[in-house]
This record gives sequence, C-alpha cells and structure tokens, in this order.
Amino acid sequence: MSILEKINTSNDVKKLNSDELEPLCGEIRSFLIESVSRTGGHLASNLGTVELTVALHRVYDSARDRIVFDVGHQSYTHKILTGRRESFSTLRRFGGISGFPKPHEAQDDAFTAGHASNSVSVALGMAHARTLSGEDYEVCAVIGDGAMTGGLSFEGLSNAAQSGEALVVILNDNNMSIAENVGGTAKMLQGMRIRPGYLDFKRRYRRVFRHFPHLYRFNHTVKEWIKSHLFPTNTFSEMGFDYLGPVDGHDVRRLEKVIRWARDMHAPVLVHVITKKGKGCPYAERDPERYHGVGPFDPRTGELKPEGESFASRFGEALCRFAETDEKLAAITAAMSGGTGLESFAARFPERFFDIGIAEEHAAAMAAGMAKQGMLPVFAVYSTFLQRSFDMLIHDVSLLGLHAVFAVDRAGLVGRDGETHQGAFDVAYLSAVPGMTIYAPASFAELEKMLAQALYSCGGPAAIRYPRGGEDDYRGCRCEDESILREGRDVTLVSYGVMINEALAAGEELEREGISAEVIKLGRIRPNSFDAVRTSVEKTRRLVVAEDVCAFGSVGEQILASLACGKESFSARLLNLRSGIVAHGSAEELRRACGIDAGAIARCARELRLEGEK
Amino acid sequence: MSILEKINTSNDVKKLNSDELEPLCGEIRSFLIESVSRTGGHLASNLGTVELTVALHRVYDSARDRIVFDVGHQSYTHKILTGRRESFSTLRRFGGISGFPKPHEAQDDAFTAGHASNSVSVALGMAHARTLSGEDYEVCAVIGDGAMTGGLSFEGLSNAAQSGEALVVILNDNNMSIAENVGGTAKMLQGMRIRPGYLDFKRRYRRVFRHFPHLYRFNHTVKEWIKSHLFPTNTFSEMGFDYLGPVDGHDVRRLEKVIRWARDMHAPVLVHVITKKGKGCPYAERDPERYHGVGPFDPRTGELKPEGESFASRFGEALCRFAETDEKLAAITAAMSGGTGLESFAARFPERFFDIGIAEEHAAAMAAGMAKQGMLPVFAVYSTFLQRSFDMLIHDVSLLGLHAVFAVDRAGLVGRDGETHQGAFDVAYLSAVPGMTIYAPASFAELEKMLAQALYSCGGPAAIRYPRGGEDDYRGCRCEDESILREGRDVTLVSYGVMINEALAAGEELEREGISAEVIKLGRIRPNSFDAVRTSVEKTRRLVVAEDVCAFGSVGEQILASLACGKESFSARLLNLRSGIVAHGSAEELRRACGIDAGAIARCARELRLEGEK
Repeated sequence: MSILEKINTSNDVKKLNSDELEPLCGEIRSFLIESVSRTGGHLASNLGTVELTVALHRVYDSARDRIVFDVGHQSYTHKILTGRRESFSTLRRFGGISGFPKPHEAQDDAFTAGHASNSVSVALGMAHARTLSGEDYEVCAVIGDGAMTGGLSFEGLSNAAQSGEALVVILNDNNMSIAENVGGTAKMLQGMRIRPGYLDFKRRYRRVFRHFPHLYRFNHTVKEWIKSHLFPTNTFSEMGFDYLGPVDGHDVRRLEKVIRWARDMHAPVLVHVITKKGKGCPYAERDPERYHGVGPFDPRTGELKPEGESFASRFGEALCRFAETDEKLAAITAAMSGGTGLESFAARFPERFFDIGIAEEHAAAMAAGMAKQGMLPVFAVYSTFLQRSFDMLIHDVSLLGLHAVFAVDRAGLVGRDGETHQGAFDVAYLSAVPGMTIYAPASFAELEKMLAQALYSCGGPAAIRYPRGGEDDYRGCRCEDESILREGRDVTLVSYGVMINEALAAGEELEREGISAEVIKLGRIRPNSFDAVRTSVEKTRRLVVAEDVCAFGSVGEQILASLACGKESFSARLLNLRSGIVAHGSAEELRRACGIDAGAIARCARELRLEGEK
Repeated sequence: MSILEKINTSNDVKKLNSDELEPLCGEIRSFLIESVSRTGGHLASNLGTVELTVALHRVYDSARDRIVFDVGHQSYTHKILTGRRESFSTLRRFGGISGFPKPHEAQDDAFTAGHASNSVSVALGMAHARTLSGEDYEVCAVIGDGAMTGGLSFEGLSNAAQSGEALVVILNDNNMSIAENVGGTAKMLQGMRIRPGYLDFKRRYRRVFRHFPHLYRFNHTVKEWIKSHLFPTNTFSEMGFDYLGPVDGHDVRRLEKVIRWARDMHAPVLVHVITKKGKGCPYAERDPERYHGVGPFDPRTGELKPEGESFASRFGEALCRFAETDEKLAAITAAMSGGTGLESFAARFPERFFDIGIAEEHAAAMAAGMAKQGMLPVFAVYSTFLQRSFDMLIHDVSLLGLHAVFAVDRAGLVGRDGETHQGAFDVAYLSAVPGMTIYAPASFAELEKMLAQALYSCGGPAAIRYPRGGEDDYRGCRCEDESILREGRDVTLVSYGVMINEALAAGEELEREGISAEVIKLGRIRPNSFDAVRTSVEKTRRLVVAEDVCAFGSVGEQILASLACGKESFSARLLNLRSGIVAHGSAEELRRACGIDAGAIARCARELRLEGEK
C-alpha cells in the first residue's frame, strides 16, 4: 500500500512521519501526471504546489480551518488528499469532480475559485466572521504571483494587513501566471527574492523575545529601526503584514515549519514561497505555459494532441491581417495571449501588443485612453473575465462613445472549466452598456467578416462574441442582422453563433415529422430590429429562441419585449441557461442537460404545435 | 483687473510672472469659496489643489497635453483657468457646466472622471497612443491617495511603471479620501511622508550626471546600491517609477519646478505631493469631510443648511435597530460612511463596521467570505459604484447562493453629479446576478420593512435600491410584489420606488380629463410574477411603465417579455432613461428632460387612448 492510499482526510496527512512526506510528494506527482494525462486538466501549476499543499494539510485541518485557494486550478493535490483520490478519474467530466475548489463538492473546499485575485478578500471576510462569532478556526489564503497583478488582490491585502486578524496569506511565487508575468508587481516580487537570510534573523529575533512581551514591546522600536535601516523592507511589510520568506516551495519540511510558525503568530502574516511550475516533470518544467491547461497527453513524453483550428486562432490570424494595413490597431490581453490566439500578433507587432497581466479593469480603461487619442484598441478576453470590466465599459468607454473593440472569447458554454467560467452573462452585461454593438459570428468566415465590421463599420464600443473551440456544420457567411437560413410555415426558430447548428438540426428533425420550421440566424444581435423575426412569427404564430446565455437579458427576452405589442397573438418558448449557473461537462452534454440542444428545440416546437391545435 | 480675470487658457497661466502665482492662488481660493457657497458642490478637495493645478498649467498646455484627473471633483481650479470662470455660476445646474471633467465640455478636459482610480490606466493608454502615433504631447495623471486604495489604480501603476512611457503620475496625498483613509495603502503612504531630504539628493545627483550619460550608466549600479542601502525605497520605486517627493503641495513655485523636472525625465515618474484638504478656509480645514460635497452655505461662517431626512439616514437608523438584536449583522462601506448613513452604526457597533476604502470589488468579495461563515453582511454602496462589483456579485456571492445584502443607495437619477453618477444601470446588472432578489421601497416606511425582508425573509443575494434624498408625497407602506394604488379602466400605469409619485400624479391628472388610470406599484421588482399587471392590462389593454433606469433590462422590458404571449393584444409605452447616459441637473429637471415625469406619463396614456380610438 502506498503512502498516498492511506490518506483520505486532511488529518491523515498529519499522522505521517516527517520521513514519509517527501515520498508522499513523489507519489502525488506520479499520480497527477498519470491522471491528468488521461482526463486532461491543469498540470504545471499543480506539479508546482505539491509540497506546499502537503505542508498546508500538515498545519491546517481543511474540514474546519478555511484554506482559500485563489484561481483554484492548483487545488488538485488538495482534492487528492481530501477523499477525492478515487474519483479523480472523473475530473472535469459531466457529473464528476470539478477542476476547481467547490464547496458543494466537499466541506474541505472553503470557497469558490475560478476568477483570479479574490482569495485574500474572501479569507479576510472569513477571518472577520470567525472573530466576531468567537470561534477559533484558522484562515489561510493561497495566492499565486500572477493573481497578485489583479487589483482586487491589492485591495484585499491592503485591508487584511491592517485588520489585525489572525490570517495567513501564502504567496505562491512561480514568476509565471499562465504566461510570463508582466508589470511592476512582478518586478517588486523579483526584488524580494534576492534578499539575504532575513527570515532566519526574524525567526531568531522573535524566538528570543516572544516569551517576554514587555521586553518585546520595549524592543519593538529598536526592531523597527533595525528593520527599516538594515534590512530591506518590502511592500507587504510596509502595508502591515509580518513578512516571512522567501521559502523554498519544494522543501516540504521547511514549508511546514514556516507555515506553522505563521499560523501561530495570530496576526496578518504573508509567507512568500518560491515554487517551480511543472516541478518534477521535465517537459512541464521546460514549457510550463504549454502544460498549464491541457487535454489528454502521453505521460511519458508529454506529447499533446495537436489542436485544431478554433475561433480564437482564426481571430488571431485575422487580427494580424488587419494590423498589417492599419497602424492604429493595437491588441491587449490580460495574461491570456495563448488562450485568445494573440501569440502571432505579439510576435509580429510587439510594439502594438500589450499583455497587461491579470487586470481586466485596467485593460478596459487603458483601451479607453488609447481610443480617446485615436488608436483602435482590441481587447481580447474571455467572456467570464470581462465581467470584471463592467464598470469601465460604462464609465470609461461608453460615456464618451469611444470606439474600442472587445473580442469576447469563450462566450456561451465553455465546457469542462464549469460554472466559474461559463460565458453565460455577456449578452446581458454587454447589452446594458450604452451604445454597445454586439456581433455573434457562427462560423470562421463570419468571425472574420464581423471582426472587420466591428473594427471599421461601427462607432462606439463594439463586441464580437464567439465560443471556445471551432465551428460546427454551419460554415456559411451570412452577416446580416437577420438571415433566414430555412423557410417554414409552422414555427420560427431563432438562434445565433454556433447554437445555430442546433436550430438547423432541429429544423431538419421537424421536417422529417412534417413540421415546417423557419430558421432565422441573427448576426449582429444588438442593435437589431428583429423585423424578420416579427414577420416570421406573424406567419407561424410560434417562436422558439435558443441560446447559451442566462435568461435575463437574453436575446429571447429582447425579442419578446419587442414583439409584445403586436396585433397577433403567438406562443413562445425561450431556451437558455436560465440562471446562468451551469456545472462542468462537455459542451454537448451541457447543451443536452440545459435543454438547449436540437432535441430540446424540436421538442418545444412540437409542444407549441400541439397547443395550437387544442 | 484681478490676475484671475486675465486667465482664459492654460497658456495664459504660463505668461504670469512667478510673483503673481501666490496672489493668483489666493484669488482662486476666494472665488471658489464664494462661488461654491452659492451653487453647492465639492469644496474641500478643490481648496486643497489650487497650487497644484496652477503649477500643472504652468508646465502643461491642457488643450494639447493630456491632464487626466482621477475622480474629478477636484477639477474646479482647472475649469476656472480654462475659460469657464464666467460660467462657473452654472456649476452642476441643468444645462450648465459639469462638476467633473467632461471632454464634451472642453478640449482641456482630457477624459471622463467620476469613478475613482481610473486615471493612471487611462493616462497610460494615452501615452501608448501618443508614442505609437509618433506625436509628442505630454501625459499626466493626477490621483488622490483615496483613489489609490482602489485596485484599478494598482493595476494601472503596476503597468505604467514598467511601460517606459513618458508619463507623470501626481499623487495628491491629503491623507483623506472622503472620510479618513484606511488600510495598508494609507499606512504605506504615511511611511513615505517621514523621509529625509531624499528628493534634494536625487535632484543633485541627477543634475551632476545627466550630461554624462556614460558616467551615469557606470554610476547607475552604485546609485542603485546607495538607494537600496542608504535611502529608503518605496513601493513606487520598487515597481519601477522614478519617485520624486514628498513635495509641499501649497508651495506653488516648488511644485512647478518639480513637475517640470518630472515631465523632462521622459519616463514613468511619480510625484508625491502633500496637500491639505480645505486649505485656506478655516471651517473646511477643520472638518474637510463635512465640506467635501456641500449644498449652498454661508461663505463667512461655513454654516450649512441642515439636511432633512433621507433614505440614507433612515437606512442607517434602521440598520442600527436590527444590529441591536442580531449579532451576526455587520456593515461594510467603501469610504462612504457619511453618504450611506452608516455613521451612527460605525459609532455604536465599531467591531462590526468595516470601512474598507474605495474598493468595491473587495467589499463584495469580503462580504461573500463573511456570509459563507455565517455572518449577515450588509454592503451599503451607491448604485453607480456597485458596478465595480459586478463580477464578484456573480462569482463570489451568487454561485454559492450566499445571503449577503446590498443596500443600493443613489439608485436612479442622482441629480447634480451627472452622468458618471446616475444610478441608471442597477436594475439591469443586478437582475443578471443569479438568484438576486431586488426590493424597491417608495417611502421611508417601506424602506424599513423591505430591509427587514431583505435581511430575514429571503435567501441568497438580496439588494434593496433606494434613491438619493428623501421620500415624496407617497408615504404608504405597501410591500407586496404588486399593489394596486388606484383602480382604473382605461390605462395601466406601473412604477416603483419614488417614481411612483410621478405615476400617481399622472393618474390624478388623467382623471381630471376623464381618463381612468389604474396605478400599480411594484415592491419586490425581482422576482415578480407581474400577475396583477397582466390582469390589469387584460382589462385596460394599455400599459405605461415609468422608471428612472436604462431601457435595457428595465422592469418595463421584463414586463413586456412576460406579457408577450398573452391572448389579448395591448399597446405599451416604456418610459425610462434609454441608454442610461443622463447629464446633470436637479432630479425634477432631469425627469422632465428624459420624459419620465408625471406629465410625460399622462401624455403617453392619452396617446395610447387616441390610438385605441382610431
């Protein structure tokens, strides 16, 4: 029996001899590589945090204490150690365990994670709750240096430092976010890494004085003087944290000691841990960005299946073509140059390419500044992360009617990343932005043509939303606001983006049953007069709108509101993601589960027809 | 002729002898006090930045260079110096000049301001645009220490520091935001203030070496060593800024020199300026928070008109009563304890009161952490600023269905603060949050009762939205989802919140003309079945919905979508703020201008009736 097989709870980790820790870490690493090579998932970041997570479970009881992981894709070891080793083969599968911490899955998962930089704020809230309730559990936030570039983490740290709460922040510093880190935060952290043995001094100093509180207080002034004059200070200690580090993040015994010590200081403490992304796996160490999030691969060689063309890659290629002839065009990414397809843009137009770190608010405000001075900025960003920029879209971009373009990738269902990442809200929040034009291409050809329209045929803010992955059967290029793809008499089916494939398939299925469906594809979804939809519904008296966004503010609701005062009555069904909360699984499984696939559309059409016959 | 009267452009300031600068500042101060005492507006922050603004105009040409003010309520001196002195009596009046920088008003106003912390991001975007376009104007951001607590400013600074762009950031440090500053940022800045004459050393050092670039480079390593070992570093220089300061913000000649020097460094430079809020006006210096934003006052004594009761003050009182019996209840504000009515809560329950600085994202995420651990957090915040928390409302609060309460103050039209502050979007963005319940009280009595419902009668996230100022004629307490306040046959008028007063007045006006209006008030606007509205419209066949939010996602659109598939046809008019962009003026003037007041409602009802008669 391996050591790992003995571990089913946080407390089992504590029962091990310290000799067993290093072998345990080796077993976890093998398990991770083997398992993720089969399921796909996040590899490099998890390999980098094996020792850190084992050390955390030596010090904390995750069922009671609150370990708040930031971003959360580095929580695999935590899941393996807390009763989910055997279900790990279901990782990111429909009905299986999530690739992110999920309180509904286990009490050990303290909080939702998925979007970066929230951990310190959440942990501080928990620490306040703990103290106000008179309870005595511990709270610890684990945040990467990448997430530190997000302003939310700065807000959280700034408050936590001054809170006086017993709260440990572990800074997992691998000098990478997903791509290489950028900006002043990275530089600050680099500065801290090259410090001398300050930690040992600090530990000895504290050890001597901690049993003599009066002496300690008397000496505090002296200490502060020493600290500020002889020992380098840093932002964290200037803020008010007790700063410990840097600590070797792959020395599990030392990590355990330092974290235990931090816990016992009962104050806001920041522990700076240096880890290596991909640690212990040669190919992942060599190219951690490539092995950040992967599909199944060969665990021996690391060979990945080649990726097909995607909306992201075609977007990147198209943007390069426009940039060749338009010197005003610039591209912005928030640490996602790979994911958003901007790598070749970055290589070909480095002076017009801006990777601003995980800082979507800044990206949108900076784009506004560029647009105000005559540039044509394109911010490529995932739908779910652009939620962060909502206020900047209104206040900075739209109040002045600035022409900035938002390339909204991963719009709609994203699949295996699950509920924190579904692009379910963009139609609603983008529609709320004054003057926003929204395009929804359904094929690569449409992506390119609508990108040209967003760039050159509209004023004010413009968004072009497209899904994760590639195009489906529909390969047409119909960029009108409304295109009738199939004519029919009995029912009107409306959709846009790749969901049009479901509507078209439903149309065929219905035809086989003798029901004649008119299928209308929307191109520019806002503004849109819905005239063709109105005309069609006046004929068919039945409407089904299918889309993979939340019900509120959906195009379906917009159509109903626009058709409400017609002369003729009609029946309608809106198929969408309802609240917008959808767990993980393949996009196909999720469409079926949410009732927005071809079968569900056809079913609704049949029901409407039966109702009509009553 | 005074000195001030000779100044009509940025360049006129440059023509003055340096002897004239101090007298000019005195004249500006008198003008400000005199003028604001009549119009109302922001006083203390403007008095604190007179010398700084004069110095900026000595160095920069605001018509060409880009001076980006953060928050922007400190831009009065800038406006006075750039051709708007004579129209200053129209400040914040309908059709008059705005209290915030506004590019549509003057080319000298580089960018929109109103929400905090965007200036560095915007300025960096402008600097990039300048460099990429091969132009040579200067860019300067002016940001207060309060706005520095916002994460967006950290994101902007972090990027700007590493950009290599010629860009000057002026940190206007008065150790106040609106209330006193809190958190680690404030502590960090305090640390910087007590530094020795570092600036003079740095200047002498640079002066010696700047004409000998090789020597400079050779000496650079030595300098870095000296800097890091003998001279205190700070966060800004660690990020990569050249840091100059602190400088006395009321020494106009020295300010001019330092800003000019910063400009000529052609690199990212941060100038740390120490100012005094309310400077030169005894009562404003004594109590700068009280004289932050004021109505008309006695310029001699500073005596303010006593403020009447408001939704904010009644909210604060009610929250205290709930807190007396509920130890789980905690209150959070983002530097707005005064504005949101939380001052007595802060005094009575200090351990459960959290002023987290201008950091709305953090506030919402921290509230989520508290709620997860069993507390009942209430985040009181202005509607327009809660836009910043949109992502946290979804990701941190709603995915786990956490019960946190959002007291959304200044919802709907806010009046004189204008387009950056209108609470026009909350119904749309709150409705997009999964599981969000939204209450809209129309009177003080309803506010208290609905607050109780939000706290104790619903699960998941809850918002209660109420306007700036006080209640109007309607003083009832009807908290049902739908209440029929007046029965009628010819037309259904629907509204909620204080806008119900307009609907009721329209109902009376119509009655005098023989048109019988049914008036329905909504209490909880989401979720809401709209059953009573449906029944009423089936009777009247005419619907008018009046509300002071943007059209998209409005309750009117929600009602139309819900009524679209009814058996009977009907006519409808939705009266709202359309795009949501509404300039400044009194709420009454704005309701009239936007066509949502009683007169407009009655007009619509008449039109619908005439259409029906055709």
